[in-house]
Amino acid sequence: MRDIYHEELDGLSDRLVEMTRLVRQAMTQAVTALLDADLRLSEEVIGGDDRVNKIDAEIEETVFDLMARQQPVAGDLRTLITTLRMSGDLERMGDLAVHIAKTARRRHPESAVPPELTVTVLEMGQIAERMVAKAGSVIASRNVEMGLELDADDDAMDRLHRRLFDVLLSPKWTHGVEPAVDITLAGRYFERFADHAVHVAENMVYLITGQRPAEINDLSD
Amino acid sequence: MRDIYHEELDGLSDRLVEMTRLVRQAMTQAVTALLDADLRLSEEVIGGDDRVNKIDAEIEETVFDLMARQQPVAGDLRTLITTLRMSGDLERMGDLAVHIAKTARRRHPESAVPPELTVTVLEMGQIAERMVAKAGSVIASRNVEMGLELDADDDAMDRLHRRLFDVLLSPKWTHGVEPAVDITLAGRYFERFADHAVHVAENMVYLITGQRPAEINDLSD
Repeated sequence: MRDIYHEELDGLSDRLVEMTRLVRQAMTQAVTALLDADLRLSEEVIGGDDRVNKIDAEIEETVFDLMARQQPVAGDLRTLITTLRMSGDLERMGDLAVHIAKTARRRHPESAVPPELTVTVLEMGQIAERMVAKAGSVIASRNVEMGLELDADDDAMDRLHRRLFDVLLSPKWTHGVEPAVDITLAGRYFERFADHAVHVAENMVYLITGQRPAEINDLSD
Repeated sequence: MRDIYHEELDGLSDRLVEMTRLVRQAMTQAVTALLDADLRLSEEVIGGDDRVNKIDAEIEETVFDLMARQQPVAGDLRTLITTLRMSGDLERMGDLAVHIAKTARRRHPESAVPPELTVTVLEMGQIAERMVAKAGSVIASRNVEMGLELDADDDAMDRLHRRLFDVLLSPKWTHGVEPAVDITLAGRYFERFADHAVHVAENMVYLITGQRPAEINDLSD
């Protein structure tokens, strides 16, 4: 009985990794759609989010089912609850990729990103992808070291986010209000995506080590 | 033993209601700070969020402790997990009130809200307050009927949010990019606040009735 139970726990972990893979792909496509004003690609991201939502719902069902049937002890309970949380964060990251894709769609056939911000948005997208990929590795291979890198990635995202506002609010900004609104929202979506990736990694590191990444990083300073 | 356990469950419910009260107050003050460019009030909201975070952390600790000690059965487990989720939503709502207060502080001594948007922002604030108050009532008195009202409130919030963009993107907008950025972000914060209030009510209605509000509302059409 316990063996099937632990197989089911492993299965949950595989589903979470699958979610990180889908969310990463959605983010890659959403950023390309945003920069290239690619309508087909933005529709693909928007339509594809169902798969992420479905896995989230399945994970929730499995967790409640395991809890009801197995009366798990404290450690396994924590794993199950953390799984629910990570699934919720990843589901939300899928939504944020959709929001970016919708920004692209709304402005099509124009690009929502003025030329002087192309590189900044590209970098934000790359960091977002890297963060969700790392979160996936922390879940798949319990790679704590990689989990500890997410805070630095989040700082890099914050710096790019500030650069976005510097450009928007500079007297040299000539694109008016509408692109400013789009960029403001897109920047917020990237920032929240990164926050959720940090949560996933934090939860996983805590599950493995019993410590929060900030505590571990403090010790290694 | 079971009696103390159920007393502890009731205690958790009281803490959640206390969170709704604090978050509601934070939202009221944040909106006043935003409209009146009141620096003292925005600092109060920003500083006061610690209390909400502290209750969230205490609820989490109590839930894990109860789970470890009591091996709760399926129904109680669901209550405990739902409590964690509602606490997480309310904690996030506190953060969003803080974001609105920070918008006010950033633009002080000017107001971040141009005169033609004062009424819209005021209404968004009133709906946000009403929603968190209703969420509190659903938790405190298991008032399902009130929980079912949140979807309509959320629709009203979405309408106001669209009105915000209509004004921002109208050719009559004369305030330039910076206020547009502030209003775009504030609008997003209100909208997310409302989404989290809906989640809290949904979770609570599901706990009481075993059905999602959408299912119940469909039946009564």
